Amino acid sequence: MQPKVSVRGLPLYKPGKSLEEVKREFGLEDVIKLASNENPFGCSPKVWEALEGIKGEFQYYPEGAAPELREKLAEHLEVDPRRLIFGNGSDEIVQIIARTYLDRGDESVMADLTFPRYETVTRIEGGVPVVVPLKEGVHDLEGMLAAITDKTRLVWVCNPNNPTGTIVSHEALSDFLDRVPPHVLVVVDEAYHEYVTDSAYPDTISLLDYNPQIIILRTFSKIYGLAALRIGYGIAHPDVVAELERVREPFNVNRLAQKAAIAAVEDETFVFYCRTQNRIGISQMTEKFDEWGLSYFPAHGNFILVDTGHPADEVDEYLLRHGVIVRSGLHLGFPTHIRVTVGKKEQNERFLEVLHAYLHKKGK
Amino acid sequence: MQPKVSVRGLPLYKPGKSLEEVKREFGLEDVIKLASNENPFGCSPKVWEALEGIKGEFQYYPEGAAPELREKLAEHLEVDPRRLIFGNGSDEIVQIIARTYLDRGDESVMADLTFPRYETVTRIEGGVPVVVPLKEGVHDLEGMLAAITDKTRLVWVCNPNNPTGTIVSHEALSDFLDRVPPHVLVVVDEAYHEYVTDSAYPDTISLLDYNPQIIILRTFSKIYGLAALRIGYGIAHPDVVAELERVREPFNVNRLAQKAAIAAVEDETFVFYCRTQNRIGISQMTEKFDEWGLSYFPAHGNFILVDTGHPADEVDEYLLRHGVIVRSGLHLGFPTHIRVTVGKKEQNERFLEVLHAYLHKKGK
Repeated sequence: MQPKVSVRGLPLYKPGKSLEEVKREFGLEDVIKLASNENPFGCSPKVWEALEGIKGEFQYYPEGAAPELREKLAEHLEVDPRRLIFGNGSDEIVQIIARTYLDRGDESVMADLTFPRYETVTRIEGGVPVVVPLKEGVHDLEGMLAAITDKTRLVWVCNPNNPTGTIVSHEALSDFLDRVPPHVLVVVDEAYHEYVTDSAYPDTISLLDYNPQIIILRTFSKIYGLAALRIGYGIAHPDVVAELERVREPFNVNRLAQKAAIAAVEDETFVFYCRTQNRIGISQMTEKFDEWGLSYFPAHGNFILVDTGHPADEVDEYLLRHGVIVRSGLHLGFPTHIRVTVGKKEQNERFLEVLHAYLHKKGK
Repeated sequence: MQPKVSVRGLPLYKPGKSLEEVKREFGLEDVIKLASNENPFGCSPKVWEALEGIKGEFQYYPEGAAPELREKLAEHLEVDPRRLIFGNGSDEIVQIIARTYLDRGDESVMADLTFPRYETVTRIEGGVPVVVPLKEGVHDLEGMLAAITDKTRLVWVCNPNNPTGTIVSHEALSDFLDRVPPHVLVVVDEAYHEYVTDSAYPDTISLLDYNPQIIILRTFSKIYGLAALRIGYGIAHPDVVAELERVREPFNVNRLAQKAAIAAVEDETFVFYCRTQNRIGISQMTEKFDEWGLSYFPAHGNFILVDTGHPADEVDEYLLRHGVIVRSGLHLGFPTHIRVTVGKKEQNERFLEVLHAYLHKKGK
């Protein structure tokens, strides 16, 4: 009763500590979590209004094809509804893509320091992760192109990249896509898309018209503030969607998430507010980092990867003891960095105070 | 950009028609759905109370290990909490089991007429479904034992079986498990467990103590009335759970489903009520079937597979036109049967009236 070879010894995903855990472990009352790139402003209040209406529907299976949300979102994105596929978070679409395209021994190309699920799902399928180092925290698209072989089936481009927060530009991505051979599907993971304000950021949907070999991933877990409900989506050529649909579980997206997502898409004011506050929060933090001489990567999402100059786990532990949860860079491949989510003004202040106290204690 | 070989040409799951579809298609106002074995009594009112408390938590990822629900359910089932794994519906656990244990060419043994996902997930992994015909609608455990080879990794026993509704007894299952070779994991799918009142039904958890090679599947989608929210669970040896955990998506069960399940488990009165009403509904229907000379399988779940003696799709269409959605047996392998979910008294009455009118029209 052994698992299949590719699963044996696979590492377990270690999520960050929850608020509840930190309170228990350190005997603290007042803890803030800036560790999982969640929206500090919650979600649109319209979401709760929408959910009130479905109290009587809990016993009914969701409609797998999410027809109502599909129509609404297609209109919002100005794409053909047949270009959409929905998942139990965009994580699940990452999994569906690997299950659909990767056979044992097939290669999938990814950055060395990026969202870890690309590697895990590749390994589960018995595929071979081919890793191309970031260049100054940015995807090396030339290097990724050079890494493509006859065995490559998938290339993963996380944009903005998690954990660095950097982006590749429209021009760079477009040029890259023009040169990717036709047997490869390029996954452009845009989980933080709605946070980006840089005009160089790709309009990837416009590239889809000329490149049937892209799938764009988006999520309702970040700026829309619905991580608890689990819903994300992919945008791709209808033929790609049709293949993925064979592998999708029939009732993968719950009824509440579908309803909530419809309400969330409709509230553009909330999204605009969160995006604006996020840019203000980034300035609030980076001004202090500059003042203290700390380097950081250009932050295009709702998080900053900052180099503290000290062992990441030590900094992380110090912050935890003072009620601030961030993500140590150690397991992300950055041994002296921490990744901090941009919070509300007062949360950012508290984080900066505690970090400053730590740096001061270290004589810096 | 071809999918992997095992996925090419895989059939798409065709869910039953929704209430909304039937209303649109046939221009009807008043439609009842007895097609998806959903609970006609909804869910415990305690569920909504519990959900009120988490309005402010939508932006937070769920805790993947579901610690609070795990503790509550372990206590309720009287099992070690490490024996539990949670899924986005028990469907997802079916998928996780296949992904964990099936390599290309591995065999998985199942009944010919049973829950179709066992076959689909086997095929996606490149595994080989080995099909053993039911005997008078009941799993042929002797036949399944004989079908096990060195390549067999999984055996699926759906109990009660969907779509027949029949059960295998405690003695038969226990005897079967004693003889299954150690390289095989037996999946006992008990989605309808809480509906069963027959004393011959297995106490499968008690068998787990002596057989590390079982996994029991249960769900909150049936008697608990939470199909919309997507949550199910598996009960297995902690070593089996640990292997499955490597393949589980980190945030697969949404926060609302976890909270709702806790409230649902606590409301034993609701479960008792639904089980009792279900037995009354089964009598209500089978008395008429007996009167009309229709044969049916012994119904242990919340549905009945009844032989109408006429082409299933024709009966199904007639019922649809009269606002009653059931499941045609044609695609379930029973060309003259329909599968009807046990509804509320008045829903059952309406179904019986329309069916009677059809049979009368046919001169029977």
